[in-house]
Amino acid sequence: MSAQILYGKSFVDSAKQKLRSLLSQRSAKIVTVGFDNADWQQYCKSLCVTARDLGVQCENVILDRRASADDVCAIVSALSDDVTVNGIVVQQPLPDEYKSVLSCISPYKDLDCLNPASVADMYYGRAGVRPATPLAVLELLRFYAIDLDGKNVVIVGRGNAVGKPLMLMALGCNATVTVCHTHTKQLARICRGADILITACGKPDLITADFVTSSSIVVDVGLGFVNGQTHGDVADEVYGVCKAVTPVPGGVGPVTRIMLFENLLRAIGN
Amino acid sequence: MSAQILYGKSFVDSAKQKLRSLLSQRSAKIVTVGFDNADWQQYCKSLCVTARDLGVQCENVILDRRASADDVCAIVSALSDDVTVNGIVVQQPLPDEYKSVLSCISPYKDLDCLNPASVADMYYGRAGVRPATPLAVLELLRFYAIDLDGKNVVIVGRGNAVGKPLMLMALGCNATVTVCHTHTKQLARICRGADILITACGKPDLITADFVTSSSIVVDVGLGFVNGQTHGDVADEVYGVCKAVTPVPGGVGPVTRIMLFENLLRAIGN
Repeated sequence: MSAQILYGKSFVDSAKQKLRSLLSQRSAKIVTVGFDNADWQQYCKSLCVTARDLGVQCENVILDRRASADDVCAIVSALSDDVTVNGIVVQQPLPDEYKSVLSCISPYKDLDCLNPASVADMYYGRAGVRPATPLAVLELLRFYAIDLDGKNVVIVGRGNAVGKPLMLMALGCNATVTVCHTHTKQLARICRGADILITACGKPDLITADFVTSSSIVVDVGLGFVNGQTHGDVADEVYGVCKAVTPVPGGVGPVTRIMLFENLLRAIGN
Repeated sequence: MSAQILYGKSFVDSAKQKLRSLLSQRSAKIVTVGFDNADWQQYCKSLCVTARDLGVQCENVILDRRASADDVCAIVSALSDDVTVNGIVVQQPLPDEYKSVLSCISPYKDLDCLNPASVADMYYGRAGVRPATPLAVLELLRFYAIDLDGKNVVIVGRGNAVGKPLMLMALGCNATVTVCHTHTKQLARICRGADILITACGKPDLITADFVTSSSIVVDVGLGFVNGQTHGDVADEVYGVCKAVTPVPGGVGPVTRIMLFENLLRAIGN
């Protein structure tokens, strides 16, 4: 038996079409804010390509390397007050001394769900933006008509970007949620009990055939590297055992980018 | 076999002694803010008795029934700015139209962890105040030398007061955490797999003997009523099966009150 492969592309194509028709008529604009870091600038460039493809203006603010938290906050606050700006994306992660910057992003323009008020809205399950990667996981599952209600969802990884928000969001979808991590005992046994197993560790081949059954749906959010190639947490042998699996690359990854624009849509709605 | 009963009283006695010695020399003051509701006023009265017992001044602000969210926010902001006030407790729950009031509590005086910034600190596991009831659960377990690291913790209930924050806080203690609720299937089976089973549903006798094993440690945070008497979620028969259990009344309940003063100590430390 071979697993169904849950590709992200078909979802991305249909989501882009929807977003293009909803966003292009709104003259929306997003602004990225970050330092002159090669990875970040590459990310911004690629984000702006997607933005323009969706009919959204995109600008990058490059910070002076000597900018203090107060300086950055002033810039972000001005963007928050600027009625021509609909969405703000601040470089992540920033060093700890810039923590206060996140409170300066208007919760109504906070495309990455970084402001504490946005986090609290997510925590309480209130309307608002959601972190892009866990949102991508849930939307991709929804695209493939995989319902979470009453299902046993096991999440491997408890990071702030994926595991922790996904735990709350999956709970909001009425899943019974278990979160595993480096201190978990009998990890394989717990994972085998999952209807839906979501892994976000960045440890290539962590999830082997003994972690799944023929009814497991596996969502691979891991991003590691093997011989210079991106590689998920899920070993190849799993593809021969489980019911369905999202590939890496080509699964959750491409969906994540699009979710920032789902948040833009929510932000504009506010 | 009969379970060890994990009473709250011995912990409360020792915690009070510690808090009294640390707080009484600080001339600390707490203020409660709420409407003229009988239950709330009774709670405030009793809270002030505990406060004075610990050498802490306690005042109650009773709101005019016509006070708007802005009015209440102005009062809470003034208390937040008042250097003679160290802790603020706002009536819970307040109707939805008062949601904005929570942001007006200084995160440095927020004894109930209600401000979105306090919630975000809890979410990220940063230093700060914590919600009183889940904090009481963890402190009571610590008092009885029950370590959560690597343990399977199953929480029944996903409410904002207990289940949801406890999930995050138990994860911060390196437990593998499962959250169950009304949509969970095979609840008894999942609960039997717990090293530590924590229930916070307010449904008397929900947890029966088939939910536990002889090695289960059971924490009963349920508060229901049977024949006018307070009654936990845990049925009497469980006491004959599990390894240890917190009683209702006399378990987590008395510890919860004290935790507001643990938060006061953290607040003063800021």
